[in-house]
Amino acid sequence: MIPNLATIEIAHERIRPYIHRTPVLTCQTLNELSGATVFFKCENFQKIGAFKARGGVNAVLSLLEEERQKGNLIGPVVTHSSGNHAQAIAYAAGLVGTKAYIVMPRNAPQVKKDAVRGYGAQVVECEPTLEARESTVADIIAQTGATMLHPFNDYRVIAGQATAVKELIEECGVFDAIMAPVGGGGLLSGTALSVHYLCPSAQTIGTEPEGAADAVLSFKTGKIEKAAFINTIADGLLTSLGDKTFPIIQQHVSDILLVNDAEIVAAMRLIWERMKIIIEPSCAVPFAALLRNKAQFMGKKVGIILTGGNVDLGKLPF
Amino acid sequence: MIPNLATIEIAHERIRPYIHRTPVLTCQTLNELSGATVFFKCENFQKIGAFKARGGVNAVLSLLEEERQKGNLIGPVVTHSSGNHAQAIAYAAGLVGTKAYIVMPRNAPQVKKDAVRGYGAQVVECEPTLEARESTVADIIAQTGATMLHPFNDYRVIAGQATAVKELIEECGVFDAIMAPVGGGGLLSGTALSVHYLCPSAQTIGTEPEGAADAVLSFKTGKIEKAAFINTIADGLLTSLGDKTFPIIQQHVSDILLVNDAEIVAAMRLIWERMKIIIEPSCAVPFAALLRNKAQFMGKKVGIILTGGNVDLGKLPF
Repeated sequence: MIPNLATIEIAHERIRPYIHRTPVLTCQTLNELSGATVFFKCENFQKIGAFKARGGVNAVLSLLEEERQKGNLIGPVVTHSSGNHAQAIAYAAGLVGTKAYIVMPRNAPQVKKDAVRGYGAQVVECEPTLEARESTVADIIAQTGATMLHPFNDYRVIAGQATAVKELIEECGVFDAIMAPVGGGGLLSGTALSVHYLCPSAQTIGTEPEGAADAVLSFKTGKIEKAAFINTIADGLLTSLGDKTFPIIQQHVSDILLVNDAEIVAAMRLIWERMKIIIEPSCAVPFAALLRNKAQFMGKKVGIILTGGNVDLGKLPF
Repeated sequence: MIPNLATIEIAHERIRPYIHRTPVLTCQTLNELSGATVFFKCENFQKIGAFKARGGVNAVLSLLEEERQKGNLIGPVVTHSSGNHAQAIAYAAGLVGTKAYIVMPRNAPQVKKDAVRGYGAQVVECEPTLEARESTVADIIAQTGATMLHPFNDYRVIAGQATAVKELIEECGVFDAIMAPVGGGGLLSGTALSVHYLCPSAQTIGTEPEGAADAVLSFKTGKIEKAAFINTIADGLLTSLGDKTFPIIQQHVSDILLVNDAEIVAAMRLIWERMKIIIEPSCAVPFAALLRNKAQFMGKKVGIILTGGNVDLGKLPF
C-alpha cells in the first residue's frame, strides 16, 4: 500500500535511533547566485554517506517486525547494487545481526566492496550485467532463502526515503518548491508523499540528467520508459522507474527538469567551493536544474535534498 | 595588553552578528580510527571559509570604536596577505564601509584576487617577496594614511581568533586537550587563552608541519626562531611567530607536535572521505598529529579547530 502519513511517521520513529538527523545548510553566495532562498538537506552527512540509509534501515527493521509477528527470527537478506544501496543494506543488516548478501559487479570499485564488507556483509561478485546480477540474486535466494530488498521499488524503502524531507519541513516550515534527483524514483516518490502530506502548497520537482532521461519521458508518455541512451556522470541516476514509484510520481510530482553533465559538474563545483561540503555528481543535479531555470525559482523558498557524498577522490571531474 | 576573559567575551559580542556560529561535528569512524573522542569545530564553514574572519572582523570593528571615541570616522585599512587574512580584512572593511587596500603578490591565484575584490577591497599587486610586500604597504600608508592590520601579531586579532574555541567549550563542555595548527600563532595563542580561562584543566596542543618547524624550535629555545627550511603543503602555516603571540604560547601551550606532509595529506583525505567536508591542507595538521600520537590521546576527549576550507580544486594532492 502506498505509504500514508502514519506509515511515514512510524518509519521515522523506527529508523530514528540508527540514522543521523542531518543538518540543513544555507549559503548566502549561492542564494545570491540563484536568486532563490535555498535550504540544503545534507544527506551527504547521513550514515553510509547517503540518504539510502533511511530506506535500507526501514526495510530491514520492517522485515524484522513482520517476522517477529509471525514468531520467526529474521533470515538473511540479499540485494544487488554497486552503489549506496549496497552499503545501506549492509549497514542495516548489521544493526539487526542478520546476514546480508550483496551482489556487486566484479568491476565495482574496491573501496565500495571494502565498505560493504566493513559493515559485516558478504560481497558476492558477478559479471557486470543486469542479467548476471539478477541470476546471482536468484541463486542466493534458492540456496539460502534470503529475502530480496529492492533499492527503490518497495514501499518500505519509499517510506524511509520520505523521512528526509519530513525533517526538512519540520525544521524550516513551508516551502514553495522541493527538488530531488530521480533515478529509480525511491527518493522522489517518498519526497513527493511527504510534501503532499506535510506541505501541500509546495511543488515537488524531480530533476534528471539528460544522459539518463527516462523519468521525464515516462512522465510525459504516462508509462514507464527506458532512456533513449545512457551517458552521464550522475552514476546514481541511471535506473528506470518502478511500478511502485512511478504512480506516486505521476500523481504528486509537478515537473521533471533536465540538466546536462557540464551543468552538473559546474553545480557540484560551486557547492564544493562555496559550501565546503563534498557531494557526489548525482547529488548536484537539483541545484544545477535550479540554476538552469532561475526565472522559475526567482524569489522562491526552495528545499533541495543533497543526496550523498560518496565520491572517488582519485577521479574528480575537475 | 594580552586579552583577558572580558576582552575575549567583548570581542565575541562585537563580532557575533557578522560571523557564523560554526557547527561542531563528530565522526564515529574517525573516533574508532584514532582511539580518541574528537569534536571538530568547523571553521571551514566560517565566513570567507576560514577562522580568520573572526580576527579580521574584531580588528576592524575595534578600530572603528577607537576612532569613534576620538570623534573620528574610520579611515582606510591596509594589509598584505596571499591567503585567508586578505579575504578576512576585505570582508570586515566592507562591513563598516571603509576602504581596504590588500597587498598581494603578483603571482597569487586569480581566484584569491577575485575573492578579495568581490568583498569590495582594492588589490594592490607587488613582487612576490616579503620586502616588496612591506615596502608596498609602507607606500600605501604614506599616501593614504591607512592603518595596517597585521594578520596575527595584534591583540585584537588574537582575541577574535580566541572566540572559536570559546564556542567549542560552551557547546561541548570540558575537554582533555584542544589542538590547533600554528603558523604566526594568532589562532594558537587565542585558543590557549580561551582554554586557560574557560577550561583550565585542558591542555592546549600546537601542531606544525615539519617543513615549517619554527614554532616547535622557538618553544624549545625560548626565543622566536625561523624555520631551518620551508617546504610543506600546509601553505597557511609558513610564517614565524610574533612578539605578541609567542609569549602567550610559551605560557599557555603544553606542547607542539610535528607532522610530515604525507601525514597531512592522509589526514586531509580521511576527513574529506569520512566527514564529507572540505578542508585545506593546513587544516588537517592537528588531526594528523593526533593520528601520529595515538597513545597520547587514547580515550581522551579532544577538540580540534578545523581552520579553513579554501582549496584550489584544480590542484588537489590526491
